[in-house]
Amino acid sequence: MEMSGVGPLTAALRMQNVVQSSSRWAQGQQYRPWTLRSLKLQPLSPVPSDIEISRAQTPKPVDQLAQEIGLLQEETEAYGRTKAKVRLSLLDRLREQPDGKYVLVAGITPTPLGEGKSTVVIGLVQALSAHLKLNSFACLRQPSQGPTFGVKGQRGQISTHISMLEISMLINESFNLHLTGDIHAITAANNLVAAAIDARMLHEATQKDKVTVMFSRNPGWKIHGFRAYSILIPGVFLGMFLDFCNLKCDVMYELVFYIYIFGVGFFRLVVVDTNDRFLRKITVGQASTEKGHVRETQFDIAVASEIMAILALADGLGDMKTRLGRMVVGSSRSGQPVTAEDLGVSGALAVLMKDAIKPTLMQTLEGSPVFVHAGPFANIAHGNSSVLADKLALKLVGEDGFVVTEAGFGADIGMEKFFNIKCRASGLRPNVVVLVATVRALKMHGGGPNVSAGSPLPREYIDENLSLVVKGCSSNLRKQIQIAHLFGVPVVVALNVFKTDTQAEIDLVCQMAKESGASDAVPCHHWARGGRGSVELAQAVKQAGSQPSHFQFLYSQETPIVEKIRMIAQKVYGADDIELSPEAQAKIDYYNQQGYGKLPICMAKTHLSLSHLPEKKGAPTGFTLPIRDIRASIGAGFIYPLVGTMSTMPGLPTRPCFYDIDLDPVTEEITGLF
Amino acid sequence: MEMSGVGPLTAALRMQNVVQSSSRWAQGQQYRPWTLRSLKLQPLSPVPSDIEISRAQTPKPVDQLAQEIGLLQEETEAYGRTKAKVRLSLLDRLREQPDGKYVLVAGITPTPLGEGKSTVVIGLVQALSAHLKLNSFACLRQPSQGPTFGVKGQRGQISTHISMLEISMLINESFNLHLTGDIHAITAANNLVAAAIDARMLHEATQKDKVTVMFSRNPGWKIHGFRAYSILIPGVFLGMFLDFCNLKCDVMYELVFYIYIFGVGFFRLVVVDTNDRFLRKITVGQASTEKGHVRETQFDIAVASEIMAILALADGLGDMKTRLGRMVVGSSRSGQPVTAEDLGVSGALAVLMKDAIKPTLMQTLEGSPVFVHAGPFANIAHGNSSVLADKLALKLVGEDGFVVTEAGFGADIGMEKFFNIKCRASGLRPNVVVLVATVRALKMHGGGPNVSAGSPLPREYIDENLSLVVKGCSSNLRKQIQIAHLFGVPVVVALNVFKTDTQAEIDLVCQMAKESGASDAVPCHHWARGGRGSVELAQAVKQAGSQPSHFQFLYSQETPIVEKIRMIAQKVYGADDIELSPEAQAKIDYYNQQGYGKLPICMAKTHLSLSHLPEKKGAPTGFTLPIRDIRASIGAGFIYPLVGTMSTMPGLPTRPCFYDIDLDPVTEEITGLF
Repeated sequence: MEMSGVGPLTAALRMQNVVQSSSRWAQGQQYRPWTLRSLKLQPLSPVPSDIEISRAQTPKPVDQLAQEIGLLQEETEAYGRTKAKVRLSLLDRLREQPDGKYVLVAGITPTPLGEGKSTVVIGLVQALSAHLKLNSFACLRQPSQGPTFGVKGQRGQISTHISMLEISMLINESFNLHLTGDIHAITAANNLVAAAIDARMLHEATQKDKVTVMFSRNPGWKIHGFRAYSILIPGVFLGMFLDFCNLKCDVMYELVFYIYIFGVGFFRLVVVDTNDRFLRKITVGQASTEKGHVRETQFDIAVASEIMAILALADGLGDMKTRLGRMVVGSSRSGQPVTAEDLGVSGALAVLMKDAIKPTLMQTLEGSPVFVHAGPFANIAHGNSSVLADKLALKLVGEDGFVVTEAGFGADIGMEKFFNIKCRASGLRPNVVVLVATVRALKMHGGGPNVSAGSPLPREYIDENLSLVVKGCSSNLRKQIQIAHLFGVPVVVALNVFKTDTQAEIDLVCQMAKESGASDAVPCHHWARGGRGSVELAQAVKQAGSQPSHFQFLYSQETPIVEKIRMIAQKVYGADDIELSPEAQAKIDYYNQQGYGKLPICMAKTHLSLSHLPEKKGAPTGFTLPIRDIRASIGAGFIYPLVGTMSTMPGLPTRPCFYDIDLDPVTEEITGLF
Repeated sequence: MEMSGVGPLTAALRMQNVVQSSSRWAQGQQYRPWTLRSLKLQPLSPVPSDIEISRAQTPKPVDQLAQEIGLLQEETEAYGRTKAKVRLSLLDRLREQPDGKYVLVAGITPTPLGEGKSTVVIGLVQALSAHLKLNSFACLRQPSQGPTFGVKGQRGQISTHISMLEISMLINESFNLHLTGDIHAITAANNLVAAAIDARMLHEATQKDKVTVMFSRNPGWKIHGFRAYSILIPGVFLGMFLDFCNLKCDVMYELVFYIYIFGVGFFRLVVVDTNDRFLRKITVGQASTEKGHVRETQFDIAVASEIMAILALADGLGDMKTRLGRMVVGSSRSGQPVTAEDLGVSGALAVLMKDAIKPTLMQTLEGSPVFVHAGPFANIAHGNSSVLADKLALKLVGEDGFVVTEAGFGADIGMEKFFNIKCRASGLRPNVVVLVATVRALKMHGGGPNVSAGSPLPREYIDENLSLVVKGCSSNLRKQIQIAHLFGVPVVVALNVFKTDTQAEIDLVCQMAKESGASDAVPCHHWARGGRGSVELAQAVKQAGSQPSHFQFLYSQETPIVEKIRMIAQKVYGADDIELSPEAQAKIDYYNQQGYGKLPICMAKTHLSLSHLPEKKGAPTGFTLPIRDIRASIGAGFIYPLVGTMSTMPGLPTRPCFYDIDLDPVTEEITGLF
């Protein structure tokens, strides 16, 4: 350090400043212990409505929460007063910090009303942090707007997902349905790809005199070091240009001209985050300006899109960009896959998605931290919150802390995909599975009458009925515990207690769960009592988390596609075998030929049964699983079989719940959302 | 005040506290003088690229900016570090505060490259605030993502809109294309209506056994005081129910059953913020689940949607909600209009839009405040930023301050709609019009060769050519000045100087502008010198603003629809007459019959000519304006004639500029957006 012309005192002061600031810097880099301030709940009897509970509580400012859990100021970006995006640089700062315990909350096969899995996540985290004083973090998915406006209670025909009830537990400030806009970013990115394909197909077919020369950014295609797809050349010069580039003309030709998009089941073209059933099958390009380039296509709901899956599975900005570029959007005329990178659109997609990749920090009603990030449905997508939210949370809670993440719907779909897809992508290994059950769902599996949204519950579900409970425990509950054990992870059964449940029913479930191999089984009363109602569950999870876990995948990546599907069908669902449609078989052949055979499998299957038939409750056997169609999400990194009649665009019911949603323009209070 | 059992000192202290806090409260209610800190620009020669200029500048934290311009802490909601939404409660607090001066920036008919109107807004505000030390505020529209990914330079085939260049002048932190998500909220709201219609039509046509009874919330329809559309009743009971409600069955029938949507040109069903030309004409409902309810429809781009217009024209949350409910989405089988309110969806729409209604505060590179809010295109929508942003800004700048707002494209469309639609809705009256011209556009109007995006500029535009300039000034410039004078507002011509312009050309434009009636005409050098380059313009605007303005509308609301269209065509565009297609005439008859005849007119016309023919430059005469079709946006409050071949869904060009857009995943730096 040079200090010419500076007196000794000044020099000493400067030196001191330098020392102080480097020490501050070093401290900044270190892990910071938590100073979490819990918010007291005043549980009331009778339990008030969700919205009343939520409004009665004042959340901490999000910057205070961020400070309490050891985030640096520059690591957060506030969105209003109760939400903040957290920057991924945190992962770098806490590189050396050991991860906390990793807890997955899954469930038995639910009724159409949902069994409160997300509320178990919230209750457990509140119990761990506010009552056992252990650092803990909840990781949830962002709710889709589609189901929000659909079926009351059920919230959508295909997903109970994270409901408004859970959200009401997170914040009470006027709720922003758009959250921090991540699903909108996904929609915009997806539809940019669709527009790029449409425009390109049209211009290539109609303007042979003006050709956009397109090379992939893959090293093999990069020519003379420049991004050549910025070149628009007259068609007549194409041959000369190709000679100049020293490329075989036929190879260029198929990249340059006319993308043949259909028939190989890749990228779903256009998405909206709305349940619009009329967009399930459409014909586009009918305006005269499109010169007869009409084609059939369909919309998917945004949360079932490949870009949503990419957001949930990426482990950084670079990885997300690579996956976006790798998405196969169709095939060329000679049958070669064409990617988003080939279309020249991957940079723009990364720009559209660069903020969506940061998880959103919120809090529970008791002031515990929550990440809300990504929201794939578990039946028509892989159904788990993001790898990045889990990774950030695992670093933040520290070695003795707990991260509780949720897999959608029953363990047969959400949990199976959590293990085989998400854990494979992230490299993370879970310590405990919490399996959520309700007396209501167990009675349904035991042979109780049909449960449906909007209709009153039959008496069997209100009065004590031990025989239905026994049959439900010995069928669906036992089977779902066995599925978790296939992966070598200890299971704690959490019985989400409703006020109609009798003590005998509760005791019976806990006893039968343990007999079926659960490490423990406890009743949870978080709905009535908040975190305090889940202390027993928290203790059971802490205990199970201290046991060794022997995690293993169900199948190796090397197993052929058909075999992987069969293993899931037989070992997880209990099917005798699978049956492939000729269309599905042809696509599998094509995928194998293209080298996609090593990808894991993401089944699109009903969540209402272990089988493909929603009405088959309990643990059905003796059925053959029909694979109607199959898609490949190469960017997300999975093969996507469609089982039976699964649709990737939900619809609204006869009486959608948006009828009840209203806003008071003076108080800005929202009614009917909960 | 009761103070029993409290000592005198304590009582005195308490009293003092009460006095202090009420005085603090009273101060909080008052107007707060500004303490704006301007940021110094270091203008460089040669002028660096926009992105380099932008990155070299560190913006103030948005909460600091908010404090400097007299906002209370509780009046802002931060979105990241450089953006904040401003709450509408401000209007209430500053109710008594007189408005500042209201300046509209419009332009002559542009070339396809755009003439830098938004940069004139920014330069003017920087000059007023950083150099003349007058409180001033810019109000801009939010850019649509569609054109952002379209044509470089032009940014979209139909709109230069606010370009990325302007945005680069606003913030230099990594730019978020989604801003605060307002356009996404509009898309979501619009598509919810579409889904609601689709679902309702299907269920009513196929489930006569289950009928959702629907009453409007209009007082006339409210029955027995309850929101009856929450009722789902079996079809067989419908008659009994109607008797019970004491309603004529046929009236109910048409509200209860089957909405006939088409043929009267109301609400555009589905929108995306993407240029996807294949969605211009589509057929939906082709899946077997829709049981043959196939129909033709089309997508519009979100910024041309009625909900975007409502956002821009609403003057509060209540007004927005009323307008959303009033949107006519189709007609019943007996020909009665059906509204969003009738569909039961208006409350949900208000919930989706409740944050979008708050303008977004940002800053220019020199630290002056900017509101970015709403973004209707000026050719296929009304083309002006929001009434609310202008109103908030007029209160904030105070009596001696200036609010500079922008109308899209040429004065013939953006400015005409500003006066006849926006000022009519807001009640605000402008003090000055700034008319932006460039030597390039004037030469084009004077007979210069074709200017197109992506092609090099012909020599005429690079070398001095006084004769082309003269012809441009005496045609298009003179006509646009005359159009502003039709409304009785003084005009200052701002010549946006390019480096190829010669002094003789600049002097000639200024002289001819004054001869054509402009109060003043000055060259602007903001592109090279920032606010300092616009000081002369700022002084001219200040001077013109002190003159009396005699504002008048072009037409009265009472004038019949056809007459209003004719007045715009003849007086503004210079047409001989208009020509209505039979379809347009039939719709006008229907609108008159429904009582919509008093609404103002929003012409959808090319921005590239005063006429309907883009190739006709200068000030064309001797043409008949063809009205191909006509729509009615009852919620937004205007009748919407489509002139010639205008499309409300743009497309991407052969070589879209997304090819150049990229993101560095390590530095998070974006390239190619500017």
